Amino acid sequence: MSRIDLNCDLGEYVGTDRMGADEAVMPWITSANIACGFHAGDASVMRRTVAAALSEGVAIGAHVGLPDREGFGRRAMALDAQTAYDITVVQVGALQAVARSLGARVGHVKPHGALYHMLDADAGLGDAVARAIRDVDPGLLVVGRSGGPWLARAEYLGLAVLHEVFADRAYRGDGGLVARGEPGACIDSPQAAAEQAVRLAREQRVKAADEQVLELRVDTLCIHGDRDDAEAMARTIRERLEQAGVEVVRPACG
Amino acid sequence: MSRIDLNCDLGEYVGTDRMGADEAVMPWITSANIACGFHAGDASVMRRTVAAALSEGVAIGAHVGLPDREGFGRRAMALDAQTAYDITVVQVGALQAVARSLGARVGHVKPHGALYHMLDADAGLGDAVARAIRDVDPGLLVVGRSGGPWLARAEYLGLAVLHEVFADRAYRGDGGLVARGEPGACIDSPQAAAEQAVRLAREQRVKAADEQVLELRVDTLCIHGDRDDAEAMARTIRERLEQAGVEVVRPACG
Amino acid sequence: MSRIDLNCDLGEYVGTDRMGADEAVMPWITSANIACGFHAGDASVMRRTVAAALSEGVAIGAHVGLPDREGFGRRAMALDAQTAYDITVVQVGALQAVARSLGARVGHVKPHGALYHMLDADAGLGDAVARAIRDVDPGLLVVGRSGGPWLARAEYLGLAVLHEVFADRAYRGDGGLVARGEPGACIDSPQAAAEQAVRLAREQRVKAADEQVLELRVDTLCIHGDRDDAEAMARTIRERLEQAGVEVVRPACG
Amino acid sequence: MSRIDLNCDLGEYVGTDRMGADEAVMPWITSANIACGFHAGDASVMRRTVAAALSEGVAIGAHVGLPDREGFGRRAMALDAQTAYDITVVQVGALQAVARSLGARVGHVKPHGALYHMLDADAGLGDAVARAIRDVDPGLLVVGRSGGPWLARAEYLGLAVLHEVFADRAYRGDGGLVARGEPGACIDSPQAAAEQAVRLAREQRVKAADEQVLELRVDTLCIHGDRDDAEAMARTIRERLEQAGVEVVRPACG
Repeated sequence: MSRIDLNCDLGEYVGTDRMGADEAVMPWITSANIACGFHAGDASVMRRTVAAALSEGVAIGAHVGLPDREGFGRRAMALDAQTAYDITVVQVGALQAVARSLGARVGHVKPHGALYHMLDADAGLGDAVARAIRDVDPGLLVVGRSGGPWLARAEYLGLAVLHEVFADRAYRGDGGLVARGEPGACIDSPQAAAEQAVRLAREQRVKAADEQVLELRVDTLCIHGDRDDAEAMARTIRERLEQAGVEVVRPACG
Repeated sequence: MSRIDLNCDLGEYVGTDRMGADEAVMPWITSANIACGFHAGDASVMRRTVAAALSEGVAIGAHVGLPDREGFGRRAMALDAQTAYDITVVQVGALQAVARSLGARVGHVKPHGALYHMLDADAGLGDAVARAIRDVDPGLLVVGRSGGPWLARAEYLGLAVLHEVFADRAYRGDGGLVARGEPGACIDSPQAAAEQAVRLAREQRVKAADEQVLELRVDTLCIHGDRDDAEAMARTIRERLEQAGVEVVRPACG
Repeated sequence: MSRIDLNCDLGEYVGTDRMGADEAVMPWITSANIACGFHAGDASVMRRTVAAALSEGVAIGAHVGLPDREGFGRRAMALDAQTAYDITVVQVGALQAVARSLGARVGHVKPHGALYHMLDADAGLGDAVARAIRDVDPGLLVVGRSGGPWLARAEYLGLAVLHEVFADRAYRGDGGLVARGEPGACIDSPQAAAEQAVRLAREQRVKAADEQVLELRVDTLCIHGDRDDAEAMARTIRERLEQAGVEVVRPACG
Repeated sequence: MSRIDLNCDLGEYVGTDRMGADEAVMPWITSANIACGFHAGDASVMRRTVAAALSEGVAIGAHVGLPDREGFGRRAMALDAQTAYDITVVQVGALQAVARSLGARVGHVKPHGALYHMLDADAGLGDAVARAIRDVDPGLLVVGRSGGPWLARAEYLGLAVLHEVFADRAYRGDGGLVARGEPGACIDSPQAAAEQAVRLAREQRVKAADEQVLELRVDTLCIHGDRDDAEAMARTIRERLEQAGVEVVRPACG
């Protein structure tokens, strides 16, 4: 029987109370990637989000981002490897302390936004961030793009990895995602996204934009929480997966 | 035989390399209070400072401050207790991860600037910050004003505490410090400061500005690293203490 | 015939596009208080908000706040008068440049959040902020609490002032507002708020929580844009005012 | 007779008082490029620096940088043109208001750090920043790399430009600077730097690292204020220029 984790980025605000959107999606997911105060979030938002995940039985992960709040961590920066190492360490550590103070623990780390792609594109950065995760806690699971070089590097360093796929994004023939902004990049219909999710989970395959069929490793599927229809999308994907006999379950920690 | 810890605030800059001042004072102290990115410091400065303390055998502590970089954490803020709890957790956690990544550990926590005084003045804030420290790691030592209510609260919560005194500041008759800006608040001569340090360490006493003799608990003495003569001040105090038979030694961790 | 300005705080987000809420309220107001990047907003949000106000014929004002994004400028800080002067100057200047680049101009300044109340409570701060506004542009209109000492000081310094009142907040007998959090502090029904608005505009009077009738100067009325029902509240207030023969109009610039 | 402006980057700190270094170099320069709170500086530092420049008769300019304090504006970022426009507008506007409040005015704009080079490398960004300057005040002088495409674009848009050269940096044969970190990139001897300054000012020529002689337009020469020997370097360059009959004078505003 196939199984999959459903992860979602949460806690991406500052100061004021906008838990609403996060709470709508929480019942449908199994893992939360929680912003650590660099690209978004702050100490109080981190605590509220960890507490909500804990009470819903959702796995707690650190969503590590670039130090760029105005750009929401989505703008590439010329970061040297040592700085990438350093900012990963403090972000993971901050969330670990929040979790510990609530009797919980951080189980995984996922890079956010521009950093997610920079780690696949720049081997030096990728190595630095993977080493940072290992040096803080070698039992942390690492979430990254399915089949990408960063996950391979993390695995080489001894970390357990989760290959991530997308239900609401179109794939290129080479396994990358069609860039946002290009036609057909996003799959807006919850039904179509759920169908892609089911095929990914059951067959470990997806049809790319060029009609080619890709084989992908599939451990976790990203649910986008910042869509206006986030709750409907999350619910539809989860319900279809379960109807198709896929076990939706949080990953076993290392 | 009397003993004392010499602590100093370090890592209080951002981005550019100004380790120079920190390195000058490091050989003379036994504990470093390291800024955690709120009132000062950043991820890379934290790592450099922890590494330097580690290589010098200096104890590593989290210097927890208000989220106010422009004001260097020296301006009081109307912080609610929950926020005080939250910002303490993430600052301690960030430094713990840095230490762990270098094979070291954080042994103590000291509040910085306005927060230091707010914790004595506001019982709700003091309780929140002490609980935050305990909830992150009950083995952490807590540094605060000698004899102040915050240390009493931390002790009540089960934390081991270090009573802090000052060599280069004049005391009021009630055990508080003469406010900066008032005449005679600062003791600028290294010799005079060293004499006050020796008396504090050996007799657990200090002569207040009103000539009254105060009894104080003395576990650790604060060395100010941001004076122009910081290195001379630190060296003179340490040498006089050792000449007077005081053992200068880092505190035993909890 | 009575007249009134309807002002609303806008541009209170960072980075991502949440113009939606601002756009919903824009058609019903006559003045926008635009966050200047300290308590909220950033360079791009400022430009988008000024452009939207300009295209709707809404007056453009600087919403000057404390340097505290996590606290959204709502936490009092121990700010010295010189710093209060300095942060006012740069915030007004930044928005003036945005306006100038779009062929518009800033007409008024309104303090935000904790600063709004600090200026009435602390004469030194109030004087500093009023002088800052005057020194940047003596033709700027100053918005503050109706009848408060800060407006009196600003007027003494030669600035034209706008006395601000609230439709959705209960008044105390002494002319202050019932503090948020106390029972009955907020008037949640758009109809009740609109009635208070009409009485304020036509009679320059309001019934306080203790049933006393207060006389107030009324130049501008604050519409809160961060309520879930902000658009309904704004529309209802505006429509009732116009039905009652009150002219809703932006203030004449100095 | 040849003439030259000597410019220096000032006000590059936050919060605490480190005017010392700035004051040492101020007597020897004719133009100050003042950080505007993005890569460095804050509202109070801006005011202190403008006041010091005003009292020394030094021209006041906005030193516009990337929103990256930890990286001191030295890390390239994937900035879109509209954002580059927006951050330029608010930085120039903030400094203009500071100057206006002191009875002074901003005469020039110089990009800082990574942005300086990004504007030559990316025509879209360069155009956006030049338009931003023009849209805020078409009388502002623009400082950029001598002979670079950004100055050409600014000139095309109707702005008056100042071609900037360096005394303490080695030039490549193509007119660019030898990158920091490469051997011979920096000229550390004040005498050698002063000789390069004199040749630049008198002959509009410099010998490149490959022994080729370059012709350069020379309006202003950058003095680095963050060297340990900044004061000696500034004084030596100024004295040699004057001994060689070069008039050291601030630029005429547009």
